Amino acid sequence: MKFEKMQAAGNDYIYVNLFEEQVDDPEVLSRRVSDRHFGVGSDGLVLIGPDEEGDFSMKMYNADGSEGAMCGNAARCVGKYLYERGLTTKKEIALNTKSGIKYLLLTVNPQNNKVESVRINMGKAIFSDSNLVTIPEMVNYPLSVNGKECPITFVSMGNPHVVIFMDGIDKLDIEKIGSLIEHQPLFPQRTNVEFIEVIDQSHLKMRVWERGSGETLACGTGACASLVAGVITGRCDTKASVQLKGGVLEIEWDRDDNQVYLTGDAHFVFKGEI
Amino acid sequence: MKFEKMQAAGNDYIYVNLFEEQVDDPEVLSRRVSDRHFGVGSDGLVLIGPDEEGDFSMKMYNADGSEGAMCGNAARCVGKYLYERGLTTKKEIALNTKSGIKYLLLTVNPQNNKVESVRINMGKAIFSDSNLVTIPEMVNYPLSVNGKECPITFVSMGNPHVVIFMDGIDKLDIEKIGSLIEHQPLFPQRTNVEFIEVIDQSHLKMRVWERGSGETLACGTGACASLVAGVITGRCDTKASVQLKGGVLEIEWDRDDNQVYLTGDAHFVFKGEI
Repeated sequence: MKFEKMQAAGNDYIYVNLFEEQVDDPEVLSRRVSDRHFGVGSDGLVLIGPDEEGDFSMKMYNADGSEGAMCGNAARCVGKYLYERGLTTKKEIALNTKSGIKYLLLTVNPQNNKVESVRINMGKAIFSDSNLVTIPEMVNYPLSVNGKECPITFVSMGNPHVVIFMDGIDKLDIEKIGSLIEHQPLFPQRTNVEFIEVIDQSHLKMRVWERGSGETLACGTGACASLVAGVITGRCDTKASVQLKGGVLEIEWDRDDNQVYLTGDAHFVFKGEI
Repeated sequence: MKFEKMQAAGNDYIYVNLFEEQVDDPEVLSRRVSDRHFGVGSDGLVLIGPDEEGDFSMKMYNADGSEGAMCGNAARCVGKYLYERGLTTKKEIALNTKSGIKYLLLTVNPQNNKVESVRINMGKAIFSDSNLVTIPEMVNYPLSVNGKECPITFVSMGNPHVVIFMDGIDKLDIEKIGSLIEHQPLFPQRTNVEFIEVIDQSHLKMRVWERGSGETLACGTGACASLVAGVITGRCDTKASVQLKGGVLEIEWDRDDNQVYLTGDAHFVFKGEI
């Protein structure tokens, strides 16, 4: 089976083109190929195939074999793959995912015909959702963490995010504080936590604690939630770049329609055959 | 550049054939390809090339770009590569490494002509070396660890190993005790630590704490040291299998010549091009 490894913001998946390859048991395959010592090594497996509703379909499997929801980083890679591997000449692509149709907008360099960045509509920012948080509209809410008051802002992008603005995030003991906040009883399904240093109105720096995973290199929905939290607390513009450990994402919030757009690059790493 | 990813006992390297490819700056290449999120992902880079002294040469680079010493797991992969990729028809191969010539003996399945296992002479077991340990011949030596007496046996295979026989290694808090022993002032260059559960005279089970790395899936010299320690303390035969997290190794100690032999399998994982 031929595959390509791609990464976006440090999120690396194995991409298989179902127009050329057949995958009978993607759960088993994902577990096998994702193992970083005995397999190819990846965050999971992404299958690119035909679709009746959208232009193409994207199916994602985590490293443990479970089917994954949409991932903005993987969707950008799919956009680049589709264009550069000649599966489409369109620059606006409707991609059918487990979270519904996602619209990709490709920026292509006319000189070399390479995809420089992909913009994705990540959907609405939501401030109250009783499934995710027991108190509605927490904006600069004074959460008590380890006896100290810590102002948090809650934003759901379909998944829960607690955003904390602070200085000196490089020195933060994220293992300790991230885990403490993740497990606060306020969040029935636990929560992701973003620590944001405001560089200026249009530049944020972020470290992210993902529920169940710990610190990761990047989190697309976390970057979206952080920009929205920055806007509603008066800290940044509705468009800003977010510097993560794994790369830079450009986030834009259209407040009128309440739609959040994520733009970033994507990279081929190598071609392989297993 | 074409490459193959191989693994043995969970030790995974990127193998490049210098008869077909040219590598100008292996330190930089190793850092780049070894990164598990932005590169191919591996423990390092192995270059297979011609040699004047031995049959072939093997050069190893760690993930941080530094040149590595010999590694029994990687040497087994090189043996399989040389035979199955048609670079040699010999089953006894003299491989020139940074630690000198190492002799490989391949066991080939006559039905499919695949290399089933590779035996390597890992050299002498040494019990006193003032560069590595301040007390000579520590056999069942009662080391005080965290106020508790813990009998250790010291064996050098060129690198230092402390072997501890105990039951219930699966439940051991290896992070804590491994690190404590690694940094005992007895060991001027720190030490690797093996925790061994004796299943029977010919079966050992091992967890390993590698100095500078923490717990790893396998350590070839550690498995050799553990068998030797088991023999001199009357716990096992001079030939036994050692079950590691990453796989099984067969170890044999020829006491007359004081030579330790390690036998194990090796695996191709995938072919790639970067």
